[in-house]
Amino acid sequence: MLKDRILKDGKILKGDILKVDSFLNHQIDVSLLDEMGKEFYKKFGDRAVTKILTIEASGIAIASITARFFNCPVLFAKKTPSSNLSDDVYTSSVRSYTHNATYNIKVAKSYLKAEDRVLIVDDFAANGNALTGLIDLVKDAGATIVGACIAIEKGYQGGADALRSQGYDIYSLAIIDKMDADGIVFRD
Amino acid sequence: MLKDRILKDGKILKGDILKVDSFLNHQIDVSLLDEMGKEFYKKFGDRAVTKILTIEASGIAIASITARFFNCPVLFAKKTPSSNLSDDVYTSSVRSYTHNATYNIKVAKSYLKAEDRVLIVDDFAANGNALTGLIDLVKDAGATIVGACIAIEKGYQGGADALRSQGYDIYSLAIIDKMDADGIVFRD
Repeated sequence: MLKDRILKDGKILKGDILKVDSFLNHQIDVSLLDEMGKEFYKKFGDRAVTKILTIEASGIAIASITARFFNCPVLFAKKTPSSNLSDDVYTSSVRSYTHNATYNIKVAKSYLKAEDRVLIVDDFAANGNALTGLIDLVKDAGATIVGACIAIEKGYQGGADALRSQGYDIYSLAIIDKMDADGIVFRD
Repeated sequence: MLKDRILKDGKILKGDILKVDSFLNHQIDVSLLDEMGKEFYKKFGDRAVTKILTIEASGIAIASITARFFNCPVLFAKKTPSSNLSDDVYTSSVRSYTHNATYNIKVAKSYLKAEDRVLIVDDFAANGNALTGLIDLVKDAGATIVGACIAIEKGYQGGADALRSQGYDIYSLAIIDKMDADGIVFRD
């Protein structure tokens, strides 16, 4: 369903950008996210997940809808300085390909505990920097990383595959192995 | 339910900040949001809403969960420059009390049309600047503003009341009329 939607409504822009802002990260098709959350639950529903971790801003919708199936809280890592967030945080730095900038992500220590079993959920994986940053936060807390759920993976950038080879269970609904003017080729 | 939760888990910080990041805007209690979405639907469910509009980042979760009841897409206004967003946008400027900064919010024109009936959903209303900014975007598109749903309103700051007096239907689940070291007083 997601692959069909990418082919139908996705647009390939200059700079290797796949624009899916009609249904995923500006306007959001909540019924599509509901189906995606169901799929993630099929994959990880028996793994005793206690917390879903994502990163602001575009991961929040899919993480929140997914959390309904897992019946657990969502925690979103903050990119922006916040007067609501104390200094008692885990932090890691993430290089953003889309924004051409490096930023620090933070979660309050009080919401990520050693006994937590954490499922990471995000809309995109490309070079894997955001995923790696989120994994680092979970490691810092001494919590368990159950796995990661991704809507769209740019497989040809290799970030998620590198994490898989380190033993992380990364489940992407649509993996793009090639993307150019001729169109999109999904991994089987 | 929300009022009880504010009293139980909310913390009043210096600078007139109500910290509710254990359940609303850092860690998110999705089942609480589900109840809030249900309430919003009770109030506006018969008003033919075609789109829910919110603002990144902390409005996205409550807007997405609420949209499940209305069975319509969510559109979130972007605060940060995005290479995914073209120049074809509606924009307005918002003064943030929490971050002590002014920023431009943007939505793509293609996702906000004159025929849309828009419900605004956000986690907080204080001086009403974010609400006003969102209303301006909807007006620019020539769309209809059905109303606005807010989780927590700082009533004593008067922003939402000023908009009500202009005729906007603003529905807040918890309105705080007083907040100081002695505690929180809700409006009846």
